[in-house]
Amino acid sequence: MTTQRIGIILNGVTGRMGTNQHLVRSLLAIQKQGGIVHGDTRLMPDIILTGRSADKLAALAAAHGVEKHTTDLDAALGDPAYSIFFDASGTPHRIPFLEKAIAAGKHVYCEKPTASLTADALGIALKAEAAGVKNGTVQDKLWLPGIRKFLAAKEQGFFGDLLSVRGEFGYWVFTGHVHDQPAQRPSWNYRGEDGGGIIIDMHCHWRYVIDNLFGEVTHVFTHAATHIPERIDERGQPYPCTADDSAYALFKTKTGVVCQFNSSWNVRVRRDDLLTMQVDGTLGSAIVGLRKCWTQHAAATPKPVWNPDIDQPLDFYAGWNEAPDTTAYDNAFKIQWELFLKHVAFDTPFPWTLREGAKGVQLAELSLQSHTEGRWIEVPILK
Amino acid sequence: MTTQRIGIILNGVTGRMGTNQHLVRSLLAIQKQGGIVHGDTRLMPDIILTGRSADKLAALAAAHGVEKHTTDLDAALGDPAYSIFFDASGTPHRIPFLEKAIAAGKHVYCEKPTASLTADALGIALKAEAAGVKNGTVQDKLWLPGIRKFLAAKEQGFFGDLLSVRGEFGYWVFTGHVHDQPAQRPSWNYRGEDGGGIIIDMHCHWRYVIDNLFGEVTHVFTHAATHIPERIDERGQPYPCTADDSAYALFKTKTGVVCQFNSSWNVRVRRDDLLTMQVDGTLGSAIVGLRKCWTQHAAATPKPVWNPDIDQPLDFYAGWNEAPDTTAYDNAFKIQWELFLKHVAFDTPFPWTLREGAKGVQLAELSLQSHTEGRWIEVPILK
Amino acid sequence: MTTQRIGIILNGVTGRMGTNQHLVRSLLAIQKQGGIVHGDTRLMPDIILTGRSADKLAALAAAHGVEKHTTDLDAALGDPAYSIFFDASGTPHRIPFLEKAIAAGKHVYCEKPTASLTADALGIALKAEAAGVKNGTVQDKLWLPGIRKFLAAKEQGFFGDLLSVRGEFGYWVFTGHVHDQPAQRPSWNYRGEDGGGIIIDMHCHWRYVIDNLFGEVTHVFTHAATHIPERIDERGQPYPCTADDSAYALFKTKTGVVCQFNSSWNVRVRRDDLLTMQVDGTLGSAIVGLRKCWTQHAAATPKPVWNPDIDQPLDFYAGWNEAPDTTAYDNAFKIQWELFLKHVAFDTPFPWTLREGAKGVQLAELSLQSHTEGRWIEVPILK
Amino acid sequence: MTTQRIGIILNGVTGRMGTNQHLVRSLLAIQKQGGIVHGDTRLMPDIILTGRSADKLAALAAAHGVEKHTTDLDAALGDPAYSIFFDASGTPHRIPFLEKAIAAGKHVYCEKPTASLTADALGIALKAEAAGVKNGTVQDKLWLPGIRKFLAAKEQGFFGDLLSVRGEFGYWVFTGHVHDQPAQRPSWNYRGEDGGGIIIDMHCHWRYVIDNLFGEVTHVFTHAATHIPERIDERGQPYPCTADDSAYALFKTKTGVVCQFNSSWNVRVRRDDLLTMQVDGTLGSAIVGLRKCWTQHAAATPKPVWNPDIDQPLDFYAGWNEAPDTTAYDNAFKIQWELFLKHVAFDTPFPWTLREGAKGVQLAELSLQSHTEGRWIEVPILK
Repeated sequence: MTTQRIGIILNGVTGRMGTNQHLVRSLLAIQKQGGIVHGDTRLMPDIILTGRSADKLAALAAAHGVEKHTTDLDAALGDPAYSIFFDASGTPHRIPFLEKAIAAGKHVYCEKPTASLTADALGIALKAEAAGVKNGTVQDKLWLPGIRKFLAAKEQGFFGDLLSVRGEFGYWVFTGHVHDQPAQRPSWNYRGEDGGGIIIDMHCHWRYVIDNLFGEVTHVFTHAATHIPERIDERGQPYPCTADDSAYALFKTKTGVVCQFNSSWNVRVRRDDLLTMQVDGTLGSAIVGLRKCWTQHAAATPKPVWNPDIDQPLDFYAGWNEAPDTTAYDNAFKIQWELFLKHVAFDTPFPWTLREGAKGVQLAELSLQSHTEGRWIEVPILK
Repeated sequence: MTTQRIGIILNGVTGRMGTNQHLVRSLLAIQKQGGIVHGDTRLMPDIILTGRSADKLAALAAAHGVEKHTTDLDAALGDPAYSIFFDASGTPHRIPFLEKAIAAGKHVYCEKPTASLTADALGIALKAEAAGVKNGTVQDKLWLPGIRKFLAAKEQGFFGDLLSVRGEFGYWVFTGHVHDQPAQRPSWNYRGEDGGGIIIDMHCHWRYVIDNLFGEVTHVFTHAATHIPERIDERGQPYPCTADDSAYALFKTKTGVVCQFNSSWNVRVRRDDLLTMQVDGTLGSAIVGLRKCWTQHAAATPKPVWNPDIDQPLDFYAGWNEAPDTTAYDNAFKIQWELFLKHVAFDTPFPWTLREGAKGVQLAELSLQSHTEGRWIEVPILK
Repeated sequence: MTTQRIGIILNGVTGRMGTNQHLVRSLLAIQKQGGIVHGDTRLMPDIILTGRSADKLAALAAAHGVEKHTTDLDAALGDPAYSIFFDASGTPHRIPFLEKAIAAGKHVYCEKPTASLTADALGIALKAEAAGVKNGTVQDKLWLPGIRKFLAAKEQGFFGDLLSVRGEFGYWVFTGHVHDQPAQRPSWNYRGEDGGGIIIDMHCHWRYVIDNLFGEVTHVFTHAATHIPERIDERGQPYPCTADDSAYALFKTKTGVVCQFNSSWNVRVRRDDLLTMQVDGTLGSAIVGLRKCWTQHAAATPKPVWNPDIDQPLDFYAGWNEAPDTTAYDNAFKIQWELFLKHVAFDTPFPWTLREGAKGVQLAELSLQSHTEGRWIEVPILK
Repeated sequence: MTTQRIGIILNGVTGRMGTNQHLVRSLLAIQKQGGIVHGDTRLMPDIILTGRSADKLAALAAAHGVEKHTTDLDAALGDPAYSIFFDASGTPHRIPFLEKAIAAGKHVYCEKPTASLTADALGIALKAEAAGVKNGTVQDKLWLPGIRKFLAAKEQGFFGDLLSVRGEFGYWVFTGHVHDQPAQRPSWNYRGEDGGGIIIDMHCHWRYVIDNLFGEVTHVFTHAATHIPERIDERGQPYPCTADDSAYALFKTKTGVVCQFNSSWNVRVRRDDLLTMQVDGTLGSAIVGLRKCWTQHAAATPKPVWNPDIDQPLDFYAGWNEAPDTTAYDNAFKIQWELFLKHVAFDTPFPWTLREGAKGVQLAELSLQSHTEGRWIEVPILK
């Protein structure tokens, strides 16, 4: 077995997600497990951290035993030892970073959303394609255990023809008005002028989830709402909420599957998980959660009786099976990292490109347009 | 206490609903309990059954010990001993029956939908109003125990400001293709040409439920689908389904409450009841079922953590209370019958008129229009 | 961010409570977390330990890495580097210590009870006020998670009008007569001549708990009992118990809320916690424990049936919600320390003064008077 | 075996308690079981119903197959076939009925309270004693299974010396303001002018319970409250509440046991039963419910740790044993009836006399006096 080093510039991973999911649970975990074995080769990541704050970089590097870090991104990009550039900085900064990296001939990988506007997101995808660099966007939910269990059942024909999906995402985010119920999300989430809103946050996810699980999205209808007009910010001050905090959406797909998704920060949860998707098919149904999945086959479907004069005799939770763990379910981010690194090193397939990432931005943008115009909006193919 | 007789013509109650809910569990039950006591008066229903089939009427009368029945509706309408005409015949026949009864000066009460077209439903309401007869439409769900428990909590300010409602109605109706899974609904339900479709069936209900519980409906958006293209009919023959079997709807209300309702005959049930409405308000939430209601107050709302790397530590079913039974919950149809009979005899209020019934027809009609046009439709005030 | 040092003399913290709660879990924990951030300032405690036993001080300092300690209290008080004096010595010694510290111009903070007699407790409060030094008394229970959860629910109007409180405190303290059931409290607790008794111990707490949660105490009725006449002391010798070991009390409040509190060292516990307060209001009730709180809303209140001929069909524990954790619940003593230090450094509010502490002593004193006279005693305003 | 007939006049048993407990579950049940066997004799009750309403009597007699009933009480009293007179009419009518019966030489037995005033209750007891007739008052709670299980444990020395009792009675009685939460008690209960109030209702019970289980009551302290100022009556009208709806009481006993009892119609129940009495003794404790009893012996008493920094590690419900059913627990009223009938027929002991009943009235009266005067009231021996 030969070991092959692969150099990666990690840009802007000092935030919570960047540190936990990308650095610690993905790349350092890959190092710790002895790299990625592919045929007779062992692929070993070699990391350099980049960012604007030398102090934060030094602290992060020290905390996790990373040797290399620098605020001089240009130097890192100029170093042929690094073939990959990854970005987890804020959305407004992403495009300029990616442009530089592409210009420097690096393969690029980055967090979502890739941009705030579809035109920008598509533009950077086109640039990467024109430059001939490999590229990818994080689409982590595809590797959540709950979704993998659903896909395993689907692969076995469990559902027959898929008919419809009911997605329910969200929970109650405290407004901060009550002592000892502090808001558990940052205030910018609720300010449109700061890039907030649940549509821009979540519809990017729904795009790749629906495309990959149920069928390519062709039309969107969305009604957005700002149910809570005032919240308390990090300084304890009330502020007006200007971004949507709930979105009621319908998606049509090429396959004819109808997808209805609610996303909300104002809903108290009485369901199996923070995100659940009920999928109904001719032969079976599933409730897909983050890590669990419950199924009911046509053969196990009860015949309910509608009789409000007596308490419902059926327990509608009883006739479902929790899908078992049948393999090791690794961290979702790490799995996608391994796929991307092998894609770069060995040219294995990696369909989750910047172009795919642009589709997520597109869906969020068209969802807002649908809300404004109050009608179905067609989702054109990005070209 | 004096006993006052009240004569009622029951037309077309040989069907399942008519027999069970209106005859047996409502009017015969009222007789059995000794009538309706109001002040010093005991109101006692005196029933005559009318219909087209003398045989069926005789059988029904014999089975339940009803003395009077006739196929001669005109004679019954001409008899001043009967002041009320009730109709539970099929929707296509309803208007002519009601017109006759109104012309005969009877107070009229009937099943829903009152008609297939809003114009007809409004027309008969206007005729009843012009004739000065008292009138009503069945809106039974308002007296279901689950809804009453919700209303009791709302009355106590439990919810603060209402924000949104997620209604989920339906279950899996067998297509009939599989031996020993016979279809449990009649085939006409799935044929548009025979008045079928889930929108015409259920959106009438959603109208009065939303109007009375959450706020007057002002706009509707609906997407309809016929997910199952072929079913097996009563003779064992396959037939093409031409009516909508699922409807994905959004309703805006005067109060600003957003109502999202799915109605479907192609959904396997994993929830608390066949109909559930999740209601979220600033101070509390409820899951409203047919007979039960679960509540969670703001003070009992947990703070969930989003971490798909571990199994969700919170049990999202645990933090809810099942609302207790705090009174006797009589049959919903019987309660509305008692209210209508007292309305006729003692002029007590009865707001569930033919005009209200017309609103249900209107919502169904506009829902179909919304589906066709793919946009929000305003719900105008009926005049 | 600038760092501001704040010097604190910790007197008499070699006992269990002083060491654990004040030194380790409060001040050292504040140091460890990087001080107290207030605006752009970081407030950092600088501690010196004082006491009578050089050995004990040295041992304590060594065990916890505290650098400074001395038996020369006067020198410490004379050192302008220390602006705060804290006392956790025994009640009989407290007043002289506080007087010295006030005379030296220190801000003072201390454990409760501040004295054994109201006159003394009020006297030291007046001296501190006259000297213009900031002052405070430990009232830790106010920051227990269970009480905070109650207050959060109350803030949201959960209870409507409060009506009554049933407090139950205590547990079975072994008498020491049985081998392997050694007494778990010191013998002086059971000797009146040594300052023992459950009233002096607990009624100080009930004062500030009731004043802050339910309404200002205006009248007290107490019946005291010494249920166990003999116990075994630390040397294994029997001794006669001369102090009250149980107190049955009622408190009237300005708000009209009736508070009934039992405190006892002779009660076997069958309830949710060692201290529980059942609070009943028009709209809801709570059981307040030390760290947990259970609530039941009016809308979830069952209708019990009294029928001793059958086993009770209702489970009276089922209809309650355990209030969720919605924030980080820090150590109660540490929270009050942070508030006091900010009060001294930045003049933020701190209403838990020596005068408030004197009210606790007053309530204990009047409780004993009530026991002696067998009647309600009015609780006058301290002046 | 010879059968001996015993004639009983049942007066005023058309009410719910009289019919269910005295007629059906006691005397008819005794008839059904073949009478009461005592030695070689079978005692068989022979019943005549008396009352003011011939219609009600006839209906009751017909419903339960009782042959004899009359509105002519004097005739019944004049008939030597009946040796016992029982009264379950309203409290205001009781004394005149009993006087008549005593004058007619009948043995008398009656419901509690025997009168509203102690003087009257004692007077009728003295009259019965002077007349030499046997007499008794219902004290049904003494034969509740929960209390019998407690007594069985006490008989075996389980508790050592009894120290204290905490009684908690009550539940939340709906005020009637909320739709679908109708008041479940009659409105007169809440009007002092109509004989209402929880003290007069419950303190009669506490008297014989305490006297028989824990020790003779010597002193009482009570604080009464009317927490809910307005309720809705049977006609749907609001009315002002003028009677106490909660009572906070302490009782001293000859044995030194301190009894603290709360009685309330404004308390939401989180305990083992609607009535629970926690009894603590040197060797063991019990929670006494209506039908169940839980015990904890000294040897099973845990040593709790007070540490509010962590969740309480002990489950305080776990260390208790539910006392088993060790015999057949017959209806409590029936048991007392059997004892009274044997007392009359065979002169077996029956200590639950009218004099004992008068003690209950006395305790209620002195409780109200204590509330008014705000002090302990001595309970003198009735002479």
